Amino acid sequence: MTLSKKPYKGCRDFIPKDMRIREFLFNNMHSSAKKFAYEPYDGPLLEEVELYKAKSGEELINDQIYSFEDRGGRQVAIRPEMTPTLARMVAGVHREVPKPLRWYSIPNLMRYEKPQRGRVREHWQYNVDIFGAPKNLGEVEILNLIIDFLTGFGADKSMFSILINDRSIVDSLFCQVLGLDEEKSYKLYKVIDKAKKVSAEKLDKMIIETIEDTKKIDAFKEYLSCSTFEDILAYIQKHQLQEQTQDFAQFIQMVKELSMADYIQYDPTIVRGLDYYTGIVFEIFDKHPENNRAIAGGGAYANLLQIFNEPALSGVGFGLGDVTLKDFLATHNLLPDFTHAQNDLYVFYTQKEQQLKSLNWSNDLRAHNLNIELHLGEIKFNKIFKLAQNKGYEHIAIIEERDGKVTAQLKNLSDKSSEVFELTDIQSIKKYLKKG
Amino acid sequence: MTLSKKPYKGCRDFIPKDMRIREFLFNNMHSSAKKFAYEPYDGPLLEEVELYKAKSGEELINDQIYSFEDRGGRQVAIRPEMTPTLARMVAGVHREVPKPLRWYSIPNLMRYEKPQRGRVREHWQYNVDIFGAPKNLGEVEILNLIIDFLTGFGADKSMFSILINDRSIVDSLFCQVLGLDEEKSYKLYKVIDKAKKVSAEKLDKMIIETIEDTKKIDAFKEYLSCSTFEDILAYIQKHQLQEQTQDFAQFIQMVKELSMADYIQYDPTIVRGLDYYTGIVFEIFDKHPENNRAIAGGGAYANLLQIFNEPALSGVGFGLGDVTLKDFLATHNLLPDFTHAQNDLYVFYTQKEQQLKSLNWSNDLRAHNLNIELHLGEIKFNKIFKLAQNKGYEHIAIIEERDGKVTAQLKNLSDKSSEVFELTDIQSIKKYLKKG
Repeated sequence: MTLSKKPYKGCRDFIPKDMRIREFLFNNMHSSAKKFAYEPYDGPLLEEVELYKAKSGEELINDQIYSFEDRGGRQVAIRPEMTPTLARMVAGVHREVPKPLRWYSIPNLMRYEKPQRGRVREHWQYNVDIFGAPKNLGEVEILNLIIDFLTGFGADKSMFSILINDRSIVDSLFCQVLGLDEEKSYKLYKVIDKAKKVSAEKLDKMIIETIEDTKKIDAFKEYLSCSTFEDILAYIQKHQLQEQTQDFAQFIQMVKELSMADYIQYDPTIVRGLDYYTGIVFEIFDKHPENNRAIAGGGAYANLLQIFNEPALSGVGFGLGDVTLKDFLATHNLLPDFTHAQNDLYVFYTQKEQQLKSLNWSNDLRAHNLNIELHLGEIKFNKIFKLAQNKGYEHIAIIEERDGKVTAQLKNLSDKSSEVFELTDIQSIKKYLKKG
Repeated sequence: MTLSKKPYKGCRDFIPKDMRIREFLFNNMHSSAKKFAYEPYDGPLLEEVELYKAKSGEELINDQIYSFEDRGGRQVAIRPEMTPTLARMVAGVHREVPKPLRWYSIPNLMRYEKPQRGRVREHWQYNVDIFGAPKNLGEVEILNLIIDFLTGFGADKSMFSILINDRSIVDSLFCQVLGLDEEKSYKLYKVIDKAKKVSAEKLDKMIIETIEDTKKIDAFKEYLSCSTFEDILAYIQKHQLQEQTQDFAQFIQMVKELSMADYIQYDPTIVRGLDYYTGIVFEIFDKHPENNRAIAGGGAYANLLQIFNEPALSGVGFGLGDVTLKDFLATHNLLPDFTHAQNDLYVFYTQKEQQLKSLNWSNDLRAHNLNIELHLGEIKFNKIFKLAQNKGYEHIAIIEERDGKVTAQLKNLSDKSSEVFELTDIQSIKKYLKKG
């Protein structure tokens, strides 16, 4: 039987040219988090299913999770998201460490998705969270970090937009203005979630079915028509919701003072489903017409540790997938060229007798923090250049004996210049490579 | 119901202080591989079980693998090792790329282990492989790389030893000297594998049961008594196995010329089980009496692509686990102190009015590649130092208005010195931090 060379459905093989892109994305994630003093963490690949049942919507458990029974009879799942693991870990340590906790991770996650553009079964997700920060300062820092992360790739306000809302506004609206009970609230959250995905007629029908009262329907539609911070602040005032939503007004004030307002836009339809969020919620959208999708989403939550019977600890965080990020960068031409590996030097020897010297010399260069590819086996002189050029090298070295002395001839493949060095003169060689 | 705060059995949570150690190990893996021009790759978390059946021993499939049926009726497994995935990926691309392929990866793997010291269910493994290298040059480079990797941590020849053997010697011995058929060969491989783990009497009994002929038993025992390269070369000569094992003699010659012999020792009991190796096989042992275990293992294989119906492509590689590496480094006091995060500066403001300036100034510093922790919310002056010291900071900054001007007072917590800077004078601040 011949085995398939394809990866498992919905999963990706990362051969080096793909992996170089992934490393580029991950390196930027690491450095962006570390700039804001966020610390790395990671958890196990498997968690008991109970953890997800306690936290997530039923859809995830029933349809999207990779779960099975282990040999000890435990119902386990491959992590479909990081937040439950994060909550479990924070619940275990939060009493012993000073607040706020600033944590980030880049785990691989699995969901049982139907593979399509932007959706795969295994993906990596940049998760950044802050716990125990003063109200609004955590929210602002998380948004600051994500803007810094995206602009670090060269993205600007013409390319992405952070659509933002506040769950406490929606909650106040449902309870005080519309007077909905829990069941109707739940239903209307689902309607909001779908507001942009369905036709105006269909939306109307869903609203009427849920609210019934004509005046209240109008109040709700008025809410849905808010599209700026000014709109929603006026709406809040008109319906006398100030008390429940004063944090949001202060938040808007800070966003403006920190020149983040250019990237942020109010959107009444952002509620992040039936998730655990309680305050600010946001989604980052690619503005490009060919890739008009959410790149990332997040928000503030008051009570993630409750399922572990721990005191409340507020948090703010976001998750950003590697696939949507890569698609976003590619759409806006922000991905550098990763066709070739970026080594410092490609070393050749044309005479078998120089093999040992070439091996040792390559090691000497490596000891000076140079990344060296050694061509294994002697090679004919006229084959060297094509090989090095195909691999995208800027510099090569040829180790040869000339007039009784073994030297290194370094060549710059762009300007065709070359220079001969003593094998021991590593410092001059380093300078030559830097210059090139 | 209250959920457990513990990770799934045999798996690890990495809170930041543990994660800093893991990052230290991984960073060294990346830089050691890149020094030798090895390129990163990765594959999916799940593979179809067929892939492991085709390659691995039955023990792994039956007892050690996490496998289940997916919703599409596929028998899948969480990868217990990387080599089958690597073989699948190389089979897919090897015709189109110049040889040799130098690839490395640091995947997370899962095995159904009974948790104990050095053994966990989820671990990360540094996998480094070269495909299509000229005979012995690949073997030598892989050993060169792993010696460079371990000595890079400060390890020396007193701390670890690479025990080495050649499967072609063992095969020639079994076939030509002992005249064993396939079944007996298989049995004797198992005996060799256990040679160091059982008593002399038990070993004797197993040998007699397998070989029977007294003269041949003596020849086999003579083999088992070889403990140096000289011993085995003499043995090869005596039993006229030169032709089948000439590569090994040449390999030994190269190892000696490259001053690697100090780290490498011949060991007739190293055969790497019933695995796919066909040439050189090796295991790296910690020499410390309290941690006398294999840190890593690997070898040369001729035919890993056969199961994909691809032409033979020889390879050499090794796998090294994060747990055994960490135990090795800890045993020899080679792990730096990772109690604290290593940020550049901890920024405070004592007056609420300086909040906005402090946020913006922190961003200015971050734009200059400094890792900045901002204390969120104003703080009383006398609380600053204890907080910063507990977090291990060397430098802090206090943003304050003095005489109508907002400045940054930088303090070195070691020597208690301090200096006042204009907020805009980032270059001087960078110099001050470097100096400290």
